[in-house]
Amino acid sequence: MYSAKELSSLYENKFDTDNFYSGNSNLYIPVQHIMRIPGKRIRPMLLLLSCDAFGGDVRTALSPAFAMEIFHNFSLVHDDIMDQSDIRRGLPTVHKMFGINAGILSGDVMLAYAYKYLTEVPAEYLPSILSLFNKTAIEIFEGQQMDVDFEKREDVSLDEYLKMVEYKTSVLLACSLQIGAILAKAPVADQQLIYNFGIQLGLSFQITDDLLDAFGDAEKTGKKTGGDILQNKKTYLYLSTQQNCTKEQAAQLKRLSTEPDSHKKVSLTKEIMLASGGYDITAQKANELYTHALNSLQAINIPAEQKTELFKMAELINKRDY
Amino acid sequence: MYSAKELSSLYENKFDTDNFYSGNSNLYIPVQHIMRIPGKRIRPMLLLLSCDAFGGDVRTALSPAFAMEIFHNFSLVHDDIMDQSDIRRGLPTVHKMFGINAGILSGDVMLAYAYKYLTEVPAEYLPSILSLFNKTAIEIFEGQQMDVDFEKREDVSLDEYLKMVEYKTSVLLACSLQIGAILAKAPVADQQLIYNFGIQLGLSFQITDDLLDAFGDAEKTGKKTGGDILQNKKTYLYLSTQQNCTKEQAAQLKRLSTEPDSHKKVSLTKEIMLASGGYDITAQKANELYTHALNSLQAINIPAEQKTELFKMAELINKRDY
Repeated sequence: MYSAKELSSLYENKFDTDNFYSGNSNLYIPVQHIMRIPGKRIRPMLLLLSCDAFGGDVRTALSPAFAMEIFHNFSLVHDDIMDQSDIRRGLPTVHKMFGINAGILSGDVMLAYAYKYLTEVPAEYLPSILSLFNKTAIEIFEGQQMDVDFEKREDVSLDEYLKMVEYKTSVLLACSLQIGAILAKAPVADQQLIYNFGIQLGLSFQITDDLLDAFGDAEKTGKKTGGDILQNKKTYLYLSTQQNCTKEQAAQLKRLSTEPDSHKKVSLTKEIMLASGGYDITAQKANELYTHALNSLQAINIPAEQKTELFKMAELINKRDY
Repeated sequence: MYSAKELSSLYENKFDTDNFYSGNSNLYIPVQHIMRIPGKRIRPMLLLLSCDAFGGDVRTALSPAFAMEIFHNFSLVHDDIMDQSDIRRGLPTVHKMFGINAGILSGDVMLAYAYKYLTEVPAEYLPSILSLFNKTAIEIFEGQQMDVDFEKREDVSLDEYLKMVEYKTSVLLACSLQIGAILAKAPVADQQLIYNFGIQLGLSFQITDDLLDAFGDAEKTGKKTGGDILQNKKTYLYLSTQQNCTKEQAAQLKRLSTEPDSHKKVSLTKEIMLASGGYDITAQKANELYTHALNSLQAINIPAEQKTELFKMAELINKRDY
């Protein structure tokens, strides 16, 4: 078995030199820009760790791991156009730097390359891995559509919000983990458990993110505190506040949605989030989902020591400074 | 063996009812809009005809045929955004009707569905069909990038133009034909011949299109005559004119590129195209490529009567009224 650090080195060594986006083509320069932003490479790491945990040959897992990273970055490029986001991890977004057309087209070619690297798995695994990935990609687009639709709706339920996050964020983590398990010929029951682990981990990650957006330390999160509140985003935190506040608080919350003074808007909304119990409900939900995630991992039928790196990864993903 | 009409019915009967874009989701309504525009379904027909010509089971070819049609329509949706085209086949384009974000996202989900339907081929063919399709998709995006790059260049060669058309237009026809051949277990040499047939047919189609854009009958082509000239597009017709005209004509051609009177611009440019021999060279090139295409089809090692429908299809694609 490998440590996370060793797997990370195997991955970086292979794809720092052997990739499709070097060269000076106007099609691939935008791809370089997004792919070279340093990051945790969460999805490839989950795929490699899962394959290794189930005793698979991680060399067969490197290309699909790269495929997951390419797909993730493709979705960021297109989402940033749709959300009109100018900055990602402190750098200009692709469309901001190269224009919307370059963002669309370089995103498209990334999606094709994700499939190309995925197709490099041994042929016996190709049908099951492709079916899983096709389903996942479709769900991700459906999740993005839900997110867009929710902006115009006032009656989004908590369950609908969770479904949106599951599709938009969780399924790619879960898919990465399951591909690793498929490549290691893990039994179907264990494949399902590691998939569920990914779903629950993604949900707890996103709900914690919602809390941090409003109550985190701007310096540590790297984001402006209260961004979601200013955009009237219907996060778990906002929705659970809405559902648990008094009539008076509800009326104030509604007034605040059009409050022009942004400092006032953020601080008063946060007061209601705390006073109504919305904050506590959200924090509890995040914890509960994280516990579910760990329980799913626990239940997988392999020796505990083979899961050590996955438990560490879960902690790394979930725990952040407030 | 089936007639083209029978194959068309098989295809339409299956996918008119069994498709992914019915329902009221905001994600799929734009997909319905583009997929339901009547058309010749050239790519699926080529795939089915090829499979049938080589003695394959056309039932295994229906899903990949649909995949080719979905991919083609996806590329139209994204290209129309990039080209800022408002009208396609007499109807508003997807982004014109539903907005750019809807165009991007519904295009993305179409690409994922193209792969989903492609993945439905029998597992034994999956590696070769996917590799071919991945390569094709990447070439198509590279072709679109060349097209974008050429707009800003004055020194595009005829060979570069042909490469761009090969990537942007021909490879999907060729890929469709080869997938049909793969599903029929055609020998590699015949697969290559039918692929080449598709490449040459696509090139002759596009060059004929360039001629029609300037010299066709607007009523019959359904396009405004001289659209390419007005946009200073570097077509085969324009480039061969540029390379064969006198110094005087070249200077006039350059002046005409900024001529504000559009009637004058089109008619004088066409005069130079005729006088320089650019028109004749282009018409000759289109004929030559079409002959190459027919020769490739001729050379395929199956009885002539099994190629009848493919010859008819080639004629249908190539021959249009001026």
